[in-house]
This record gives sequence, structure tokens and C-alpha cells, in this order.
Amino acid sequence: MPHFADAGAASQFAPDKMRKNNLFTTERMFCDVYCFEPGQEQTPHSHAGSDKVYYVLEGAARIRIGEEERDAPAGTAALAPASVAHAIRNPGPARLRVLVVMAPKP
Amino acid sequence: MPHFADAGAASQFAPDKMRKNNLFTTERMFCDVYCFEPGQEQTPHSHAGSDKVYYVLEGAARIRIGEEERDAPAGTAALAPASVAHAIRNPGPARLRVLVVMAPKP
Repeated sequence: MPHFADAGAASQFAPDKMRKNNLFTTERMFCDVYCFEPGQEQTPHSHAGSDKVYYVLEGAARIRIGEEERDAPAGTAALAPASVAHAIRNPGPARLRVLVVMAPKP
Repeated sequence: MPHFADAGAASQFAPDKMRKNNLFTTERMFCDVYCFEPGQEQTPHSHAGSDKVYYVLEGAARIRIGEEERDAPAGTAALAPASVAHAIRNPGPARLRVLVVMAPKP
């Protein structure tokens, strides 16, 4: 496992759905860059026993955590605690890149 | 625990040493923004049983993971696996802000 990654270079998009680009994976966590074209989304879901942090790198997201949904411009961090439903989408018009850390790896 | 945080607004610096600004803390992880004035640093240390990810938000860092030391401009991610010595400093001249996630919380 390399110890350094260029998140920009790792940021690959896909035309059909949001793309997850892994930077690091350990027994205790993973760190990805999620890339969303305008209109792409991750639909509501939850993880028993794992917490997730989103950090909006570029663009602007709409993020839902439990019953709370917010506009999340670059620089916004969001926490999805274990078992709490969460979702993220890119309302556009720009591309969206989000750093994601989940612990532990589900 | 709030589910959303503005990392920019949380980015406080201190004149005497680097400052850690907590965004989220759970049983499984914490997420901070570390702020370094030019010349400030976190000296080499390690954590048994916890992995740490650094993500350079603004400025440029010099990061050491084990025996490997690199210049880390904004957009660089670095992984310090459990028990591996790591250090980070701001060589300047700009301010440095780094997103830090550690799992589990030590």
C-alpha cells in the first residue's frame, strides 16, 4: 500500500453513474474520492457499525444525513454515523468531487 | 453531535503552535482540521492500533511517513498506518490547512 496519493489525479468520472476512486484501504478504514457528474447520486443507505465522513472538495453537493438535508459547497464536511441513512447527489451544473473516509471498512 | 461542519469556518490558527480544530468525534474515528502557520509542525510520533489520513486542503506540507518524506501540495493525501512514525510541517511561506481523519479514535 502506497503512503501518498494525488487525489486530483485519482479523480476519475464515469458517464453512467458516480465513480468511487480508492486512495487507501486498511483494516480500520478506507479513503476514497467520489466523483459525480451533474445529476449523479448515491442513494440513501446506511452501514451498521461504520461511520462515514464526506468532505466536499470541488463543486457543490446536496447531502442528506438522517432527516437533515443540506446544500454542501466545497469545504463542507458531513458525518453519517453508523446506522443513520445518508445520501449525496450532485445537483450541478459543475462536477462534484468528495473525499470519503469510512471507519471501520464495512 | 452535529452532522455538518464548515471546515473553513472551523480553521483557527494559533501563533505558538499548530492548532487542531475538531469537526467530528465518534467512537470509531475523529475528523479534525489542523492549521499550521509557516514553520509550525507536528513532530514524529505514532499510534498503536490507529490509522491516520492527512489530506492537504490549502498551502503545501512536508509530510513524513516512516522513512519516506515528500512535498505535499494541496490535493495530496497521505496514510500513516498504525505504529508507523509520521510527521508534518509547514515549510511556508503560506498557511497550511490539513484535514485529518484517524480511526479508531486513540
